[in-house]
Amino acid sequence: MKLKDLVFRTRSYRRFDESHLIDNKTLEDLVALARLSASGANRQPLKYLIYNTPVDCERLFPSLIWAAYLKEWCGPGHGERPTGYIVILGDKEIAEGFGVDHGITAQTIMLGATEKGLGGCMIASIMKDKLREDLNIPERFEILLVLALGKPVENVIVDEIKDGDVKYWRDEKGNHHVPKRPLNELIIKL
Amino acid sequence: MKLKDLVFRTRSYRRFDESHLIDNKTLEDLVALARLSASGANRQPLKYLIYNTPVDCERLFPSLIWAAYLKEWCGPGHGERPTGYIVILGDKEIAEGFGVDHGITAQTIMLGATEKGLGGCMIASIMKDKLREDLNIPERFEILLVLALGKPVENVIVDEIKDGDVKYWRDEKGNHHVPKRPLNELIIKL
Repeated sequence: MKLKDLVFRTRSYRRFDESHLIDNKTLEDLVALARLSASGANRQPLKYLIYNTPVDCERLFPSLIWAAYLKEWCGPGHGERPTGYIVILGDKEIAEGFGVDHGITAQTIMLGATEKGLGGCMIASIMKDKLREDLNIPERFEILLVLALGKPVENVIVDEIKDGDVKYWRDEKGNHHVPKRPLNELIIKL
Repeated sequence: MKLKDLVFRTRSYRRFDESHLIDNKTLEDLVALARLSASGANRQPLKYLIYNTPVDCERLFPSLIWAAYLKEWCGPGHGERPTGYIVILGDKEIAEGFGVDHGITAQTIMLGATEKGLGGCMIASIMKDKLREDLNIPERFEILLVLALGKPVENVIVDEIKDGDVKYWRDEKGNHHVPKRPLNELIIKL
């Protein structure tokens, strides 16, 4: 697939077919892509936790905060929840800060997920203390991002932004609309 | 190209064929990929400056700090310098912080560059005050990353890390070696 198509199809998905399980190998393959991505000063301070059993997914789910702009929606219900997670941690024994390493690897992983017919959402709104406790994450590791993955069951439509309003929204048919700024607003001339 | 190959080929390159020019359309296409990448709370606070003329490239080059681990090398000499740059800015009128948005879009752009037969380096070590002055960047914008681009003329070899030493190095033939941690060190079990 051309990268342009892959990037276009890598939307943030928040509802999944919960009957579609993700195997270990798939998640490991995605971390293998992250492994080969750039890292500030090549320090490679990121570590990854992978989860794909229903029991583990249930342990993780309650710590995640979903779709802040959708006020009437508290996140995916039973049957539509993610079936795999990759938790990105920063190893404080390797580096004090992690720059944008986790942005670099998260995007790589999400593009890889799309290629495998999956989709998901990078989640930074996390109840970190709760997640640390529920997953027994040692203090050595900073919790940076959770990537929620599954087989998407929602339709995401990219719109051009109107009146500067960046809020995504759902229409009456359940389509998820994401307003994006036009290219000529992003490339500035000085 | 499979994403795995694209990621593998997206190495950090620091020496280029300076006779290979990059046109505006190529740089705009790369920002168009960035446009469709995820952004925290969909705020899309990033702006992009693109440069591709020899005069502009000369204005930018002196503010960049190259390859800190190569103590005897001060960066690419004349004839081997980048022929295109994308400067990623954070628009402080849109957001106070930029999370890892620039990591997400930088990786997307670098993957796109590889697909187009180009390569380059994400540079965070920047003399920002100098760059701001030389390019007349208003205070409204935070300088986040510079992506240096060109047609690579160096060979980069990915090695498995030895004794935890993350420093990249050049062998006597000029090959650039990058030690990467093995996958089983990145995926941790709790």
